Amino acid sequence: MPEIEERQHQDDIQPRLREVQRLLARHKLVESLVSRQEMPRHNLVENLVHRQHLTEVERLLDHMHPADIAYILEALPPDERLIVWDLVKAEQDGEILLELSDPVRESLIETMHPDELVAAAEKLDADELADLAPDLPQEVMQDVFRSLDVEEREQLRAAMSYEEHRVGALMDFEMVTVREDVSLEAVLRYLRLFENLPDHTDQLFVVDREDHLQGVLTLSRLLVNDPDVTVGQIMSSDMLTLQPTDEAEAAAQAFERYDLVSAAVVDEHNKLVGRLTVNAVLDFIREDTETEILAQAGLREGEDIFASVWDSVKNRWSWLAINLVTAFIASRVIGAFEGSIEKLVALAALMPIVAGIGGNSGNQTITMIVRAIALGQVAPDAARKLLRKELGVALFNGIIWGSLLGIIAFWLYDSALLGLVMTSAMTLNLMLAATVGVAIPMTMQKIGRDPALGSSVLITAVTDSGGFFIFLGLATLFLL
Amino acid sequence: MPEIEERQHQDDIQPRLREVQRLLARHKLVESLVSRQEMPRHNLVENLVHRQHLTEVERLLDHMHPADIAYILEALPPDERLIVWDLVKAEQDGEILLELSDPVRESLIETMHPDELVAAAEKLDADELADLAPDLPQEVMQDVFRSLDVEEREQLRAAMSYEEHRVGALMDFEMVTVREDVSLEAVLRYLRLFENLPDHTDQLFVVDREDHLQGVLTLSRLLVNDPDVTVGQIMSSDMLTLQPTDEAEAAAQAFERYDLVSAAVVDEHNKLVGRLTVNAVLDFIREDTETEILAQAGLREGEDIFASVWDSVKNRWSWLAINLVTAFIASRVIGAFEGSIEKLVALAALMPIVAGIGGNSGNQTITMIVRAIALGQVAPDAARKLLRKELGVALFNGIIWGSLLGIIAFWLYDSALLGLVMTSAMTLNLMLAATVGVAIPMTMQKIGRDPALGSSVLITAVTDSGGFFIFLGLATLFLL
Repeated sequence: MPEIEERQHQDDIQPRLREVQRLLARHKLVESLVSRQEMPRHNLVENLVHRQHLTEVERLLDHMHPADIAYILEALPPDERLIVWDLVKAEQDGEILLELSDPVRESLIETMHPDELVAAAEKLDADELADLAPDLPQEVMQDVFRSLDVEEREQLRAAMSYEEHRVGALMDFEMVTVREDVSLEAVLRYLRLFENLPDHTDQLFVVDREDHLQGVLTLSRLLVNDPDVTVGQIMSSDMLTLQPTDEAEAAAQAFERYDLVSAAVVDEHNKLVGRLTVNAVLDFIREDTETEILAQAGLREGEDIFASVWDSVKNRWSWLAINLVTAFIASRVIGAFEGSIEKLVALAALMPIVAGIGGNSGNQTITMIVRAIALGQVAPDAARKLLRKELGVALFNGIIWGSLLGIIAFWLYDSALLGLVMTSAMTLNLMLAATVGVAIPMTMQKIGRDPALGSSVLITAVTDSGGFFIFLGLATLFLL
Repeated sequence: MPEIEERQHQDDIQPRLREVQRLLARHKLVESLVSRQEMPRHNLVENLVHRQHLTEVERLLDHMHPADIAYILEALPPDERLIVWDLVKAEQDGEILLELSDPVRESLIETMHPDELVAAAEKLDADELADLAPDLPQEVMQDVFRSLDVEEREQLRAAMSYEEHRVGALMDFEMVTVREDVSLEAVLRYLRLFENLPDHTDQLFVVDREDHLQGVLTLSRLLVNDPDVTVGQIMSSDMLTLQPTDEAEAAAQAFERYDLVSAAVVDEHNKLVGRLTVNAVLDFIREDTETEILAQAGLREGEDIFASVWDSVKNRWSWLAINLVTAFIASRVIGAFEGSIEKLVALAALMPIVAGIGGNSGNQTITMIVRAIALGQVAPDAARKLLRKELGVALFNGIIWGSLLGIIAFWLYDSALLGLVMTSAMTLNLMLAATVGVAIPMTMQKIGRDPALGSSVLITAVTDSGGFFIFLGLATLFLL
């Protein structure tokens, strides 16, 4: 287990962050005085004062968990981040890099010497190394690879060969294995040979000579049973096993459903190749939902909050470009009805309401269905049932809200016909939103694509252009 | 540990769901034949056939984990759901209800007799009961409460006294405690008295006579150390401890940072009152992000996918109402410029582009900042720094995309001045979006409210009305 600081509350990382920030501010002040030569540069005493705040920061960092240091690094602006990074003990470098978000990690790796990187990487396990590898320069990875033994090379190769969303990319290799025919007494003696059990060891894996998985022995059963009993007598063989090619999302759902701490990963011949632990699952879930929330706003990745303007622009431009195209199309739909608007300018003021409410309603439908698909609760043939329900909701809302707006339009522009057009357009656009809101995710699911991606842009595009077309079209037919 | 089915892949819940659906469909067919009297009602043989498919479903369910049964219930439409619910063994009722989403859980509880509910509830632990309690009729809770012993009543009261987002609401009471001065040998003998250790026991809590927490003894240390050693010699006293009033979100972040499986919960006198386990954390994270994603689309709660039209309308109406108001305001802004639009109808076609792109850009800013605040990485005084950066991004995007649109406007309507107005309006609206996108979440943070809630509606309202106003205003000033 990693050493954990004494912490009365889990949120006392905040005061420590403030403390680091305070010390850095003072250090900067001294720095600026020195550089403006208001303080003598070569005076030893003054130089000590100069270093003093950094030494304090260093002492603070010494007692911190790598994950906490990573947290502080993320919360600092780039210049202060580099000062702190230089103060961190070299042997913690690897673990800290692992905990950082991609953009911050990349920026720190850029500042490091290849030798430092090799030293940092060599301290990591194969599965951790696999996570870091994509960000390391090639020559560094070659050096690291050469330093590994045969088994570790094999593990590294295995871990790197799976896509990020597969179990193989999340598993580690720290399994404790025992044989079926030994007594618990012998198992207990064997475990005393360890200096520490691997983190998250809640069960031992029972394997035969060729590493085929026979069952699992939970520590709970090991501890409550008589030492004379053999492993085979009390092991459980109806455990959940995963394969490296399984979807990580499905594995995560299994961890949640069965409240697992660890699970065996076996190959197609039932040979034990690794294990998945709940902390890897937790990290995966967090990253996965984070990505989804960011993607919904068209952000490619989590932005370093202090990223340069240029990095932010790059991260966000594709979404804006797509929206520009869809907005342009909607604008051309309106353009086609310019004659009508010229004759009845009220249409210009009312049309965004029809389009906007359609977009909101469509997004509600799509969000609902995407969640249900993600949980596997929507059979591909449920489309008709869902559509019927969503159309019902749309019709109801269209009549209620549409009538309200129709009355308002009548009251504003003193035209009952305009009110009727408003009500019908609202109802029709809501029904269009419902239809497309069901159709988009169900189609995505059928063709095997992630229904969450881009659904929101697509529906807004349809309800905007569609809303303008329906409203202006009806108005042109019945009012002019 | 709950019994887990033999499952080669974690995703074989799907075929089992399909199997249940197939059997139910056959059952319904037989039902309809019987009710149309095409099959004799009182013929014993035929009656067996009639029951046959249900018996098969029952046998399938018998071997399933409560969480899997819950999953299948959620995926079935209401009528089939009730059929399956009646087939479930009564002793599993409580655990299954715990696993269900709120709307489905409520619908099933409504169909149950008070006696059934009492029987189901009595099988649960105090912390589980606390989760279920809000959905149970009061007289049922009174009966259950009477059946508890003093300690359990105390635990139930404690668990129910905390808000959902506090550690106290998530903790359980299944701690195994030991004394500091005993040997590991004695601990091992003590543990053999258990029939099973509680789920997620990765450490024993070391307490004094008054239950004050002295330290923790991980199972790992217990197993690797010599049995002669005393607990006090190897226990760790620099562990993370939580308090019942701590924010669950902060505790969840600590679990992620330190890769914990369990953590002690102590009161203000350092007395052990419960423990938090990683499975509770996992459930909390999932629900929390789920709520956030749903809230962004204005859904109050996860909707049962087969909910009635009326339930859906209720779940969604408030968002639509708010949007209607904001859309109406935007519409009135346009209304104020009807004279300008009448003279230059091109304005009507171009104005939604300005508003739309502003909304998208503002949502990107707000999403970014809300994420960073949630991770605690934004100091309340960072607003100016963030604003400067976001204004930089907005200015850049405004000039690039704005110019592009200006050129298009010029090309479409052959007016250089209209193009210039378009470019300036885009730039100004993007800068408005950036300002408000920073101001909204930072203000929410300062006044202690959740920055994620409602941010998206608010920013869209501002960029819509603002975009129309800026564009139509500039056009009125310079073009007419």
